Formats: sequence, C-alpha cells, structure tokens
Amino acid sequence: MERRQFIQKGATVALAGGLLTNQAIAMPTTKVFIHHVYFWLANPESEADLNQLIAALKKLSEVPNIQQFHIGVPADTRREVIESSYQVSLCLFFADSEEEAIYQIHPLHLKFVEENKHLWKKVVVYDSVDI
Amino acid sequence: MERRQFIQKGATVALAGGLLTNQAIAMPTTKVFIHHVYFWLANPESEADLNQLIAALKKLSEVPNIQQFHIGVPADTRREVIESSYQVSLCLFFADSEEEAIYQIHPLHLKFVEENKHLWKKVVVYDSVDI
Repeated sequence: MERRQFIQKGATVALAGGLLTNQAIAMPTTKVFIHHVYFWLANPESEADLNQLIAALKKLSEVPNIQQFHIGVPADTRREVIESSYQVSLCLFFADSEEEAIYQIHPLHLKFVEENKHLWKKVVVYDSVDI
Repeated sequence: MERRQFIQKGATVALAGGLLTNQAIAMPTTKVFIHHVYFWLANPESEADLNQLIAALKKLSEVPNIQQFHIGVPADTRREVIESSYQVSLCLFFADSEEEAIYQIHPLHLKFVEENKHLWKKVVVYDSVDI
C-alpha cells in the first residue's frame, strides 16, 4: 500500500509536468523509516578498505525492500555542529519499521556484516520515523 | 538540470507501472547531498517545546530548493550501535553542495534558527554526498 502510494505520487509528478513547484516534489505524503549508518574505518588511510566497504554496500543494495539507497562520504562542510570524522555513510529508506526489521535479518545483510565488520572500528546508527 | 532528471525519473516510474521491481524505485541515478540534523531538546520532557520545533521545521520546508524533506523522531529500535537519545531529526536532500549552501543562508532558515535555537541544547549534523 505504501509502495502504491509512492508510485501514484510519481504519476502525479509526471503528469503535472512543468506546472509543478519544487514544493510538490519536496514533500512526499508517504511516511518513511530512515536508517542512517555512519562508519568509521579501522584503517581510515586505506583506500583499499574504503573501496571494499563501498563495493560491499553496493551489493547490499540488492535487498529488495529498500526504497531508497544512498552511499555517501562526508561533504566538505565544516562547522562546529558538523560531525565529519566518519568515512562512509549509508542512508536507507524503508516503508516502515517492519520492513526495516526484515532487512536486519535478510541473508544479504547478515553476509555483509560478517564479511566486512573487520573494516570498521565504530558504527553509529540513527533510526528515525517520519512524524 | 538535476531537478529535471528527478522529474523524468518520476515519469518513467509512472509509465512503467506494475512492471517495476522495487529496485527501480530504490536506486535513483541522481546523486544527492544529504543534510541530516539531530536535535536534543533543552527540555526533552516538554511536549510544547517538541511541538514548537516540529511546527517550525514544517515552515522551514518552504525553502524552495529542498528536494526531499523528512521530520522524524527516534524509531523504537534499540541496539548498542543505535543513537536514540535525540528528540527530533531533520533529513534534507539537495541537488548538490551549492544548493545546500544556498539553504544555509536562506532567510527562512536564518529565521528558523533565530526563533527556535533556545529550544535545543545540542545539535549534531551529518552532511554527506553520494559517491
């Protein structure tokens, strides 16, 4: 149902075409569960380790119930409130908490953790649900 | 240009209809800048303060160059790696770092900070750019 709403929203966006304001795109009506993970590498200077983690995260994207998938690195912004000491971020959108729970125990996710956990020394996760 | 690509993606999603796999929705080709802010309230027990912050964040969504806007609260997930002590999160997507820089100095954003900064005791920001 959530997914259908998402597609219908896409249809509205497409049909309205050039008449749309940014606002219409910026405010999806579908509420999501955002699972945002920040990784600190055990060897932050190792390009090989960085590339291995990124490659592994790309494979992880094959878990089928992920709505949006973003692998990131810190932006160039530097202010007192900005945490930029991590090396890699993973931002996943799910329809709801049940879908995220399914992801947690999906074989591809368990395999990812098992094969790559030696690469990081610290992981911080923020799970949030839209109000 | 980024925005047009986003709309075209919407059109493709709409036209393909039921033939789509989740994967097609999950993997946008457009790279984004994710600005994720976590707020710790000065008075975390105050429902009035929470509501004021959320209302102010909704107004903030009127900044026109925001691509996606999510106001969240911590999910029910509790594991050692999960940071769930914040009260409110704000996840914004921008086309790129230049667009996020414009947001930082937008009058609506400056007004938001000025009028509401007394509500929080701590803010942590993670800015990430898609690889």
